Amino acid sequence: MFSTVTTIRVRYGETDQMGFLYYGNYALYYEVGRVDMIRQLGITYKELEEKGIIMPVVELKSKYIRPALYDDLITVKTILREFPSDHKISFHSELYNEKQELLNIGTTTLVFLDAATRQKISMPAVLQEKLESFFN
Amino acid sequence: MFSTVTTIRVRYGETDQMGFLYYGNYALYYEVGRVDMIRQLGITYKELEEKGIIMPVVELKSKYIRPALYDDLITVKTILREFPSDHKISFHSELYNEKQELLNIGTTTLVFLDAATRQKISMPAVLQEKLESFFN
Amino acid sequence: MFSTVTTIRVRYGETDQMGFLYYGNYALYYEVGRVDMIRQLGITYKELEEKGIIMPVVELKSKYIRPALYDDLITVKTILREFPSDHKISFHSELYNEKQELLNIGTTTLVFLDAATRQKISMPAVLQEKLESFFN
Amino acid sequence: MFSTVTTIRVRYGETDQMGFLYYGNYALYYEVGRVDMIRQLGITYKELEEKGIIMPVVELKSKYIRPALYDDLITVKTILREFPSDHKISFHSELYNEKQELLNIGTTTLVFLDAATRQKISMPAVLQEKLESFFN
Repeated sequence: MFSTVTTIRVRYGETDQMGFLYYGNYALYYEVGRVDMIRQLGITYKELEEKGIIMPVVELKSKYIRPALYDDLITVKTILREFPSDHKISFHSELYNEKQELLNIGTTTLVFLDAATRQKISMPAVLQEKLESFFN
Repeated sequence: MFSTVTTIRVRYGETDQMGFLYYGNYALYYEVGRVDMIRQLGITYKELEEKGIIMPVVELKSKYIRPALYDDLITVKTILREFPSDHKISFHSELYNEKQELLNIGTTTLVFLDAATRQKISMPAVLQEKLESFFN
Repeated sequence: MFSTVTTIRVRYGETDQMGFLYYGNYALYYEVGRVDMIRQLGITYKELEEKGIIMPVVELKSKYIRPALYDDLITVKTILREFPSDHKISFHSELYNEKQELLNIGTTTLVFLDAATRQKISMPAVLQEKLESFFN
Repeated sequence: MFSTVTTIRVRYGETDQMGFLYYGNYALYYEVGRVDMIRQLGITYKELEEKGIIMPVVELKSKYIRPALYDDLITVKTILREFPSDHKISFHSELYNEKQELLNIGTTTLVFLDAATRQKISMPAVLQEKLESFFN
């Protein structure tokens, strides 16, 4: 298992007239958490794209437990529970507010694609090497 | 069963640098489909809010099959498979491009809340009456 | 002068907790109006990009007169006051609600760039031909 | 004069298919800068709203000089050049990338409103007191 922690403050433009973080904007928070996890491994998603690898999302699941509110400082815990296999990688996300209340649980599954051919490829070696130490 | 159809054109600002509709923006398309379904029943979500009812999303599931691209005219099919019960309502969404290719399947579950007390309430009578004819 | 009219309904996810269309989201409405104007000329912005032309925005001005509210059906009037010159094109936008109240005035200026070299180019001939009839 | 500095990393979902930060998303960056400036004064915009004050944007001007790109760590310099008067406050924003290249200049003007009556009010005393030391 490998997990990282990122904080994000809720922007005014991300709320809706209910006063909640809009339900579609959690996807952005999961993204920030995932990208931060990869950065903490010593590589960046940007570099992967520059090497011709893209990682579109193929599945998203989200449970909204308590609303995230304007100006809340959200802690995004990003968790890799399983070593990626079969061209896919699944990230789990848990969002907490400053009172440590669990607000939201999400899972996003991405595939590794060759940007030019749009064909599935294996997880890049550079990412595999970095992750192996956490799963052995 | 009750289903409605809505069309939405993909905006430039909704794409990402992969050239795809960003995965978080599908939530907006589901919303437009749901709101349109309610409008086609003869009421509006806006009126429900004015009566003190809010409907936050409690669960979202999404499968991304093919990318929606810039300027695509997307058909959003919104389906109510089951008569709402237990303070909840689940909408299924299917997104198609102009070639009638299935791009995305989503499910959003919302709860009926009293806006003032934030307590769960039953489906508003006005909505119940409109829907009954489709499920009997 | 050349002007076109487009309607857009305010989405829930586009409002903020003030209950207003978020000030940054007007840019999306201007974009929808501009793209619709070009489509009404018989070409599409998508086709221009496919021909290797991109049109990034270089200037934006916006005055917010009355708020656009959730579910408002907004009329976006897009106006080309002057024939484009000097590698640039300026669109004026006026937004009205269903009561015909003026909500917002905006101006966006875009440049014509060669997508490959990122150098300024003249307005594409196909666009020039379509526009000339409105300015002669 | 009073100025503060905030950093924001460009999210994937904020880019468009041109590979640039979408022109409408700069408004979010200006917002984050403004809110951070107020926080650095020892109050928060959230508290102002809780006291019944809202601050809608009435004018936005933006010049796009160089594109902000995915994963860029943007420095937002927020500047209050003049002491607010006449129910209004104008923030200037300058955005720089990591090479210290100027990407964008923006100005947003907001009005102080009573949330209940929607009437213009003077700048809240708490904000006035904090700001006076920087302008005397």
